[in-house]
Amino acid sequence: MTPIRLALVGLGKIARDQHLPAIAADPRFELVAIVSRNADLDGVAHFTDLTALLASDVMVDAVALCTPPQPRHALAHMALAAGKHVMLEKPPGATLSEVEDLRQTAAARSLTLQATWHSRFATGVEPARAWLAERTVRAVRINWKEDVRVWHPGQDWIWEAGGLGVFDPAINALSIVTRILPLPFFLSRGVLHVPENRQSPIQAELDFRDAGGAPIRAELDFLQTGPQSWDIEVDTDGGALKLTNGGAKLWIDGQLMHEGPDREYPGLYDEFARLIADGASDVDVAPLRHVADAFLLSERVVAPPFIE
Amino acid sequence: MTPIRLALVGLGKIARDQHLPAIAADPRFELVAIVSRNADLDGVAHFTDLTALLASDVMVDAVALCTPPQPRHALAHMALAAGKHVMLEKPPGATLSEVEDLRQTAAARSLTLQATWHSRFATGVEPARAWLAERTVRAVRINWKEDVRVWHPGQDWIWEAGGLGVFDPAINALSIVTRILPLPFFLSRGVLHVPENRQSPIQAELDFRDAGGAPIRAELDFLQTGPQSWDIEVDTDGGALKLTNGGAKLWIDGQLMHEGPDREYPGLYDEFARLIADGASDVDVAPLRHVADAFLLSERVVAPPFIE
Repeated sequence: MTPIRLALVGLGKIARDQHLPAIAADPRFELVAIVSRNADLDGVAHFTDLTALLASDVMVDAVALCTPPQPRHALAHMALAAGKHVMLEKPPGATLSEVEDLRQTAAARSLTLQATWHSRFATGVEPARAWLAERTVRAVRINWKEDVRVWHPGQDWIWEAGGLGVFDPAINALSIVTRILPLPFFLSRGVLHVPENRQSPIQAELDFRDAGGAPIRAELDFLQTGPQSWDIEVDTDGGALKLTNGGAKLWIDGQLMHEGPDREYPGLYDEFARLIADGASDVDVAPLRHVADAFLLSERVVAPPFIE
Repeated sequence: MTPIRLALVGLGKIARDQHLPAIAADPRFELVAIVSRNADLDGVAHFTDLTALLASDVMVDAVALCTPPQPRHALAHMALAAGKHVMLEKPPGATLSEVEDLRQTAAARSLTLQATWHSRFATGVEPARAWLAERTVRAVRINWKEDVRVWHPGQDWIWEAGGLGVFDPAINALSIVTRILPLPFFLSRGVLHVPENRQSPIQAELDFRDAGGAPIRAELDFLQTGPQSWDIEVDTDGGALKLTNGGAKLWIDGQLMHEGPDREYPGLYDEFARLIADGASDVDVAPLRHVADAFLLSERVVAPPFIE
């Protein structure tokens, strides 16, 4: 089978740490081009912008966009207009309206569009989904608490308008719970704590209810020192489930049931290859929609200034 | 033909001023019940909550929800679960996630769900859409400026978290532009001015671009004294269009082309009857999605306190 000829747009940390190894390990893909203003890669054709790649004689079937979200819509639209399949890093856009436009554009052109949520491919997530599918959820607690100074040093954009603040990591939690919970859920109220010298929240508490009335409480914190937590606990009528380490470990009633090596990005590329083969798309905006709902509905309180 | 037996839920100002006359004038509907905590209507069965109506022997085919947005999802879900068609006043919910749930629920049960945007039925809107469909848009200016003290006296909820502030009227403008413009458009940046003693914006400036690159500028103001403006101006390659008075008047190159009596709510009920007859739904969330995008992406600045 001829491999899918892939161009990677954006060669930052996530591209080097995750995308390049996953592509190299998957024989269904052949990396044929890098698009990056400044960076390049030995042995791979390099272009400083997507327009130059599309005008060149390098043949490309698909494009993976690893740039920040702000320019992503224009790049994705350009790639789809040129007949290329598109993978979007998370979040799939700066606004929901532009993601909906990409979804419609890809559908109209029968191209594959994949809005990726890498945390959904964490080891514990699929067994958690299967286990919960047969049970009734009573209550959910999401604790997503990390030290922004450790994990996002110098990332000033995260604090700007549209930068999402603590929702930048917490959208991973939302991508997991929207996958594993058997019923949809809706925000009832929220509180966003925004540092007086910043635009985006540094902490948040969100109260959702699922369609069966079960409470879902999310506590998000960017100022967590000491032990970090990326944990989701689900009480059901048939036992207690816990996902820890961002979904890498699954516990049932205190027993560790699943853990394994990180296969998140290989999982994304496996899905991308299958979607292309099937002529299908996967554009689930539910995690970003919950974030937008939180910004729309929540109360804002002023937090102390954040100085890195 | 047997009329559609309709229950009206919520008997506030919008129900009395708009829904009751529109229902009375449309022979395809028969008002069979009022659901309201406090208010009732001579000659129509009255229930204090929807559960009581659904448990009664009053036969109902469809429900129109005129309550505030916060409880609307629970009511709509209950009505759909009981096999009733549902009309939602604008905005269709407090969050996008709950509207998506209603859309899926209605589709799964083959029931009609109508998310209404009454301004889309203003006299000038449909001719504006037809005129713009044949032209290329160069620039759009939205000026939605009204005096909150005149139009929303005592409506404290409008200032609370989720109350939308100046977007409560401005979502009408967004419902019109999402209908009349030939291309989709996306928010690039925004500024929300939030009074220091309130949660919701009192003024906003939003900069969008359409898929062809044309700039769309929206200026929203809740502090407009003197002449009020609910105007949309569209520059095209074939002349200038202007909608004024919230869409009631259409001007082309300065000439008044269309004006007419207010037919917005009769238009909504006409569409509701046709959707039910066709077994179809109309759940366009684009206006609310743009509002959520504005809350997600915009910079916030502190405005002077608002004291009514």
